[in-house]
Amino acid sequence: MDRLELLSDLSIPEKTKMVLMVMDGLGGLTNSACQQTELEHALTPNLDELAAKSELGQTIPIARGITPGSGPAHMALFGYEPLKYNIGRGVLSALGVDFDLQPTDLASRINFATLDENGLVTDRRAGRIATEKCIELCNIIKAKVSIPGVEIFMMPEKDYRAVVVFRGPKFSDKISDTDSQKTGVAPLQSHPLMGHEDCEAARKASEVVNEFQKQAFEAIKDQHPANGLLMRGFAIRPAMPMFNDIYKFNSACIAIYPMYRGLARLVGMNMLPVPADIPDEFECLKANWDKFDFFFMHIKYTDSFGEDGNFAKKCAIIEQVDQLLPKVLDLNPDVLVITGDHSTPCQMKSHSWHPVPYLLHAKNIRVKPNQNSFGEIACAGGTLGTFPAVENMAQMMAYAGRLNKFGA
Amino acid sequence: MDRLELLSDLSIPEKTKMVLMVMDGLGGLTNSACQQTELEHALTPNLDELAAKSELGQTIPIARGITPGSGPAHMALFGYEPLKYNIGRGVLSALGVDFDLQPTDLASRINFATLDENGLVTDRRAGRIATEKCIELCNIIKAKVSIPGVEIFMMPEKDYRAVVVFRGPKFSDKISDTDSQKTGVAPLQSHPLMGHEDCEAARKASEVVNEFQKQAFEAIKDQHPANGLLMRGFAIRPAMPMFNDIYKFNSACIAIYPMYRGLARLVGMNMLPVPADIPDEFECLKANWDKFDFFFMHIKYTDSFGEDGNFAKKCAIIEQVDQLLPKVLDLNPDVLVITGDHSTPCQMKSHSWHPVPYLLHAKNIRVKPNQNSFGEIACAGGTLGTFPAVENMAQMMAYAGRLNKFGA
Repeated sequence: MDRLELLSDLSIPEKTKMVLMVMDGLGGLTNSACQQTELEHALTPNLDELAAKSELGQTIPIARGITPGSGPAHMALFGYEPLKYNIGRGVLSALGVDFDLQPTDLASRINFATLDENGLVTDRRAGRIATEKCIELCNIIKAKVSIPGVEIFMMPEKDYRAVVVFRGPKFSDKISDTDSQKTGVAPLQSHPLMGHEDCEAARKASEVVNEFQKQAFEAIKDQHPANGLLMRGFAIRPAMPMFNDIYKFNSACIAIYPMYRGLARLVGMNMLPVPADIPDEFECLKANWDKFDFFFMHIKYTDSFGEDGNFAKKCAIIEQVDQLLPKVLDLNPDVLVITGDHSTPCQMKSHSWHPVPYLLHAKNIRVKPNQNSFGEIACAGGTLGTFPAVENMAQMMAYAGRLNKFGA
Repeated sequence: MDRLELLSDLSIPEKTKMVLMVMDGLGGLTNSACQQTELEHALTPNLDELAAKSELGQTIPIARGITPGSGPAHMALFGYEPLKYNIGRGVLSALGVDFDLQPTDLASRINFATLDENGLVTDRRAGRIATEKCIELCNIIKAKVSIPGVEIFMMPEKDYRAVVVFRGPKFSDKISDTDSQKTGVAPLQSHPLMGHEDCEAARKASEVVNEFQKQAFEAIKDQHPANGLLMRGFAIRPAMPMFNDIYKFNSACIAIYPMYRGLARLVGMNMLPVPADIPDEFECLKANWDKFDFFFMHIKYTDSFGEDGNFAKKCAIIEQVDQLLPKVLDLNPDVLVITGDHSTPCQMKSHSWHPVPYLLHAKNIRVKPNQNSFGEIACAGGTLGTFPAVENMAQMMAYAGRLNKFGA
């Protein structure tokens, strides 16, 4: 019996309310100047006071040493084994433009690219064209490309990046990329991946992709430097049990960025309107408090400033959340978890594999004396220990009184 | 290779002696009055002195967030994956009345119940009849029910609860309950569960169960309010490698309560006579010290008083064990583990999912400075970390010098 079957068997409806607040890329590293991490350095009187009445621990997002993308890191926090429910790049890109992917849609990430007179790739990013040009190219392709029996959705992302979604017969995503990730060679033909050569759905998918490529190249042949395109990460959203069915509650997503909204939609959360900014996210929580049992709140900018290597600004976002925290506490949630999806240490300017600080506030806890701050070192010594992020949901459900006993 | 195969491959006979002392439901929560858990609050000079010379840690009985019953929690401590070696309710009930279950016996929990003139259930507990009445009803059924080729064992538990065991041809336990767990409906006919319809052993089992129900109803029809019965949790003991074979030692069980004796018997431990009380359990250990390598000692009352929510009495049991502890230490065991099977916090009056304090005393340890108490917070910060209870046996075996190296 796997984890989700077990949780599905044991979960019971209750009236308790839960908040999972994810500060993206929250975890940091010790800054040599102040000898503190971002979370430790930030002035957080409310979080520190909360820590004294909470249990601390740290999560391993995917597996020790593995640096996660946002997709698997969030899937884990939602209770889905991230290696089993692996969300392909095409699906993540489609979610990232807020596209409502259907279960059989085949999605792919696209790079616009420059081809020379012999059809060989000379620039995999088409001279980094502006987003406006990308939008224009997508519109040209939309207007000119057509494949009988297949609906084609062509959507710009940013700069030279776009997404294409094919909706038609039953496709398989076990097909090869057209992007060789090299210059000096022509874009590839897609073909069924090894072991899937006999699969009709893979054969059909590669035929459609190759026909799309042929027509698209013809459509944009005069658009140098963006006179070609490369496709990679063909993916269909994986079949998975729905969040509200597993846990027998009514959940809602409060997030600003499309990617995170897409992940929440993928598991079947209810979507609340897009908040304008961080304070608006807290207002949204309050306004919808009576309507749902479980709230996923996503704060993006801790990760953004981590990626920028901006220690002061990452601290400032943490301080902003700290100032807003009483708005959550006033609602008196039965279980409040504050954590990150992964670490994004300013000194690395990237996601990292380091464990992620985790705070759980509920009744029925063990109080550690003199635990009066929320930070990486405090969390590593917390009563919850170090645990896989995929165990978060079972833990929240337990503290919320929503799981039956296993065995007599 | 699974855990038990690995341990079985690596284990070697040795002269070392081990004690696994399980204080049932040992783990507790911070009491708001004294800001300590039961284990922290109890006056335990011997345990505290031992902690200074031991390694501490905390176990997760089944999985984070999962509240275990005693069955799976003990199976984990014995080294058996609790989700794989899941012991069904019928088997646990049979163990609970000290019945010597054979590998093919089909066991079921029974509720005596009240039926109205139309045969519909009006009370699933037969007005909570006294145990004496339950014994009488079991005797009536024993005398009157007979099914050719099947031996039927009918045993009272307590109040309206009983157990039935069918011994005959090869049965499957993949059959449905006759107890719908509702009133206003008739007891159900048992039938093979979905996916097992073609299984001869399931078909045979459900036929026997339905024939038993028919004859039993006839036998007790005049016994209102206990004029019916409901069966649930049909189970056959799972096939499993035997404890002494895996670990290549000679083990013994010292326990007062039938359920725990049954679990020990299930894995093949030697059974020592039922002790009269806790001090007698320690005398039993001493008296049998030379005869066995491994002793499982079970102390029940920490759990009982946890379930009652009686903080003072749970502390008192812990203090009683502490006072008796020198009797174990005088025997100079090579490995002594003191832990619980799960937490039973007084403030919850029930089993819980919280990690369980764990103390390991042996030679070849790491000494943590200033570790001078055995309690939940100390254990959360211990050198052994937080780990699944199913890893206990490998750890004990290692400290006992009874495991070969893996690989060259």
